[in-house]
Amino acid sequence: MNCEIICVGTEILLGDILNTNTRYLSQEMARLGFQVLHQCVVGDNAERLAEQLRESLARSEMVLLTGGLGPTADDITKEVCCEVMGAELVMDEDELEKIRAYFAKRGRVMADTNKKQALVPKNGIVFSNDHGTAPGCAIERDGRFAVLMPGPPREMRPMFADKIRPWLLQKSDSIIFSRMVRTFGIGESAMAEAVSDLLEGENPTVAPYAKDGEALLRVTAKAETQEKAEQMCDKIIAIIRERIGEYIYGIDRDGLEFAVVEQLKTAGKKLALAESCTGGWIAKRITDVPGASKVFECGVVSYANNIKMNLLGVKNETIERFTEVSRECAAEMAQGVRRLSGADYGLSVTGFAGPDPAEDGRPAGLIYIGLDSKNGTTVKELNTHRGGAGSRDYNRVLAASNALYMVLEEEKGKVSRVER
Amino acid sequence: MNCEIICVGTEILLGDILNTNTRYLSQEMARLGFQVLHQCVVGDNAERLAEQLRESLARSEMVLLTGGLGPTADDITKEVCCEVMGAELVMDEDELEKIRAYFAKRGRVMADTNKKQALVPKNGIVFSNDHGTAPGCAIERDGRFAVLMPGPPREMRPMFADKIRPWLLQKSDSIIFSRMVRTFGIGESAMAEAVSDLLEGENPTVAPYAKDGEALLRVTAKAETQEKAEQMCDKIIAIIRERIGEYIYGIDRDGLEFAVVEQLKTAGKKLALAESCTGGWIAKRITDVPGASKVFECGVVSYANNIKMNLLGVKNETIERFTEVSRECAAEMAQGVRRLSGADYGLSVTGFAGPDPAEDGRPAGLIYIGLDSKNGTTVKELNTHRGGAGSRDYNRVLAASNALYMVLEEEKGKVSRVER
Repeated sequence: MNCEIICVGTEILLGDILNTNTRYLSQEMARLGFQVLHQCVVGDNAERLAEQLRESLARSEMVLLTGGLGPTADDITKEVCCEVMGAELVMDEDELEKIRAYFAKRGRVMADTNKKQALVPKNGIVFSNDHGTAPGCAIERDGRFAVLMPGPPREMRPMFADKIRPWLLQKSDSIIFSRMVRTFGIGESAMAEAVSDLLEGENPTVAPYAKDGEALLRVTAKAETQEKAEQMCDKIIAIIRERIGEYIYGIDRDGLEFAVVEQLKTAGKKLALAESCTGGWIAKRITDVPGASKVFECGVVSYANNIKMNLLGVKNETIERFTEVSRECAAEMAQGVRRLSGADYGLSVTGFAGPDPAEDGRPAGLIYIGLDSKNGTTVKELNTHRGGAGSRDYNRVLAASNALYMVLEEEKGKVSRVER
Repeated sequence: MNCEIICVGTEILLGDILNTNTRYLSQEMARLGFQVLHQCVVGDNAERLAEQLRESLARSEMVLLTGGLGPTADDITKEVCCEVMGAELVMDEDELEKIRAYFAKRGRVMADTNKKQALVPKNGIVFSNDHGTAPGCAIERDGRFAVLMPGPPREMRPMFADKIRPWLLQKSDSIIFSRMVRTFGIGESAMAEAVSDLLEGENPTVAPYAKDGEALLRVTAKAETQEKAEQMCDKIIAIIRERIGEYIYGIDRDGLEFAVVEQLKTAGKKLALAESCTGGWIAKRITDVPGASKVFECGVVSYANNIKMNLLGVKNETIERFTEVSRECAAEMAQGVRRLSGADYGLSVTGFAGPDPAEDGRPAGLIYIGLDSKNGTTVKELNTHRGGAGSRDYNRVLAASNALYMVLEEEKGKVSRVER
């Protein structure tokens, strides 16, 4: 079934906000077996929205719209869609009561303008909003559908996942199922080369991606049932494993930090961090994972040298002789934070994040990562060769990812001892 | 002049990549005085692209396209545009030489498929690519333009900024200039109410936004010259300052962390952090700012209670009596990290990030923020009333923003002493 997405909002046309709704919906629709052929954005303008909707309905059976369901005068999506599709708007008393309750729960009185949010298309399907005031709805005409959702992602996403997705599932004649194979330590081109024959496949398809130093493969199968599609994916993933298994750190994971937290939970081990140039980003990523407290002991962001010395026990002579961006300093930082916390692993990062080179002329992107455990201390040198505009974020995320991966490698017993 | 943006790429329709090009171009075009009325995405499909381009050219004088300029068979944008606009493709020997040189510099031989990237529209304008192999170009027909750019942002952005922007400037009859007024501590609706008359204005326009607990106002003026547009904005900003000046923490800033780093630099003061539920996110935000090392002493991510006690000196009885998520614990964490680091400010956060409520039944989103300085200790209680899916990020970013803002308030001498 052909599908398209229309986002309504002048703020998107002005570039004030990044359009993440379209991506979310595109991914979800692809998984449900719908083919998204167009994505469009129009402003809060009745005429242009009507024109776009007419055109979209002429070429697609399913049109998803987000935005413009708010209480103000420039929220016009529901009104325009009903007009174009010949549907009447009627007051839904249940929805009105829900909106009143939403305000009451927050100790506020519902403004009169909010009433219009409880208007729904007669004979349409209503999707309640558990995270805001505007309900969504679906309007049908001649077997074609317009599905209206609120614009804020925190309202739209749960409404789609919990209410619209099950409704769409009934309308789809095939299931598209994807698995994401996540690797680290192998470049995107090397990975693609290793599976080049698979990249030619039509069902399942295999597509390579690169992100933050990780190389990913998306395996996607189309079948009549979820079960069959899953089996088709798994067959391909088995082949991928044979070829590049040593670099795979997870399937369908959210990122390295999730793999690290899960692995440490399983192993019953704890981690402590000493971060300099990553400045807390590794700690932030680890604590992004719900339940991280079970494996995360503490982090020290030791930006200043006196903190490296006083708190982490880095020796004054180490910094004087090798500077704070050195193999030696990374080792002592990792040892220090492990000692301080009593964790099983002490992980440290020190380097030049950029954008400018260091005062001593060494380049932005030169980074040392230290890992200390009862097995000794390992230090890895990373050089991204990247300075200038945009390099700071890039260098920091690459340092963080490499550091997290070092923990996984150590757990697999793979890290070679460069230094004890 | 009406303008629209077409991004070409099946990977965008599948949701595999987030479309950041459209946002970048929308912002840039708005600044140049072009009105972006539509944004569209189509896949690597000649028929649908041709159809979209015809429609876009019918309603807009300037159509920007990105993507589909690569060397492979599914890169079709140039061919389709030339076909639709009746232009002939000819080999540009200069561009061919540049592409050869690009590969030679990297020690590689140019593949034959890359040759087609040097084809340019006859009588068109060519924009060289300093960051990749595909040149951009502009094609004219009847006073309407299609401007073709490569898809990868790291090629497209510099091409736009350095080559296409100056070309467009000649075609624009006015300049649009924006300033962003950033506030904290006043809700979006209260802010909008305070300046409701200004929101009605047509030139300059004033538009409210909310983001991560901050309320923003974008002031946009259109004039013949940059200077005049700036003056028009500043006049409105002066009025906004009179009304809600106490909440404004900056104009055209990147965020609270930039304001904090600059303020502390000016004051010659240093900051230390003790983070529990924010897990290093405040440290990460502070160290996002180049030069943060001048004001940032250290951060301690004290996830475990024994770290709160051993490292920060939180008293055992404090945790036993009040728990680690309490006014008292936040105060001792802030005091502890200031003592430990010798910084002027010790800033602490402890709370329940979610998604689940605490084991003792207290809600996700209950957070205490402590600030210790030579003037004493202040603790602020924050309750976001938000749990469940998506709440963890929301609660953490709100806690971080509130904490950063507390430093700014303290610097202004505004924080009332709740506790010493």
